[in-house]
Amino acid sequence: MPTLYHHPMSSASRFVRLILTEYNYQVDLIEEQPWEKRRDFLALNPAGTLPVYVDDSMRALCGATVISEYLDETHGVLKRDRRLLAEDPFQRAEIRRLTEWFLVKMEQDVTRPLARERAFKLQMTADQGGGAPDSKVLRTARANIRQHMKYITWLAGSRQWLAGERMSYADLAAAAALSVLDYLGEIDWNESPIAKDWYQRVKSRPSFRPLLNDRVRGLTPVSHYADLDF
Amino acid sequence: MPTLYHHPMSSASRFVRLILTEYNYQVDLIEEQPWEKRRDFLALNPAGTLPVYVDDSMRALCGATVISEYLDETHGVLKRDRRLLAEDPFQRAEIRRLTEWFLVKMEQDVTRPLARERAFKLQMTADQGGGAPDSKVLRTARANIRQHMKYITWLAGSRQWLAGERMSYADLAAAAALSVLDYLGEIDWNESPIAKDWYQRVKSRPSFRPLLNDRVRGLTPVSHYADLDF
Repeated sequence: MPTLYHHPMSSASRFVRLILTEYNYQVDLIEEQPWEKRRDFLALNPAGTLPVYVDDSMRALCGATVISEYLDETHGVLKRDRRLLAEDPFQRAEIRRLTEWFLVKMEQDVTRPLARERAFKLQMTADQGGGAPDSKVLRTARANIRQHMKYITWLAGSRQWLAGERMSYADLAAAAALSVLDYLGEIDWNESPIAKDWYQRVKSRPSFRPLLNDRVRGLTPVSHYADLDF
Repeated sequence: MPTLYHHPMSSASRFVRLILTEYNYQVDLIEEQPWEKRRDFLALNPAGTLPVYVDDSMRALCGATVISEYLDETHGVLKRDRRLLAEDPFQRAEIRRLTEWFLVKMEQDVTRPLARERAFKLQMTADQGGGAPDSKVLRTARANIRQHMKYITWLAGSRQWLAGERMSYADLAAAAALSVLDYLGEIDWNESPIAKDWYQRVKSRPSFRPLLNDRVRGLTPVSHYADLDF
């Protein structure tokens, strides 16, 4: 069976797990702490980033973009109206733009700093950069959340799903990132009812259940984290 | 005619220009200073990043990944052995992994900090963050160049082209990034003869000529920059 190296607080890992489950594709999950820079892991992915997908012939695919494009080419293309990338090149471009927005821009602005300061540093040794959260980093990241929630509100308010008429990679990428932030209790859903309504639809999908069962050692999720009626 | 918003010191912009010229695809070039955060530009790309491609119907494609996938789907697919992405999904994954390596990882480690400190800051006002280069940032970025040159040397030494038997997006992405660094005189080619040999092959292509004619106001390129026999 193929293997996915992931971390529960990595939004890119969660994104790929959602795709795999949406396509009913079974993989073994291995939790990786990328800051340990394990030699065997770096041999699979010299960039040292998550997720990494290793197929039965031990060929490695590195990173959410590479894996999601591969899964579209080998699985999505057969799924007809359950395909998570569109047929039309311009519609595909819009899905890719938003996927990158959530997994690169929102990741830099919000998700990675908060996950790092509040979750990863708990698991890191002092040598690896562990320790108490940097309050300045937390403050900046939290100030950025609102802008991203506004953008999601605008998208969810003007379209059926974030990139158009059908659920796509864009929704899974956004929900993956939000689910990390929600675990950490960083989202005030009362402020964003339209975004909440959209998130509730994605969160209720069977593919989301494994994510709601994730737990990080030493860090309890916010009480409504796994609640479908939050 | 479609339009490409670009900047001569943006490796992602150079990458897309190379693809367009390789495919003999004519566009109007508009030089954009993304740090100005022009309202009309942000309306095209809310992320405010380069490059942005606008087609004849005024539809915008944002970012090198989105544009390059679109160009593959609408042009590359017809080019047979001149196609810059492979047919095989695993080979495509390897091309995408390396393209991301050069346009995301090397960009963060080396290209963006050096371009920002040495070129963009010359053009920025004080309010925009302009001013003298930060010597600490320069030092860190320069220390990272060597690792990336080693990786290119390893790839170029063990394969015909960086991702395999044919020239691909991976070569154009790497050469786009190196050409920015070379403009700035940041590469010691004597240290990396194998990488130099590979770069010379890409640099000699007709598609590279427009890049070699690029000039940034107030910043003369290193003397061998446009020299094919450097």
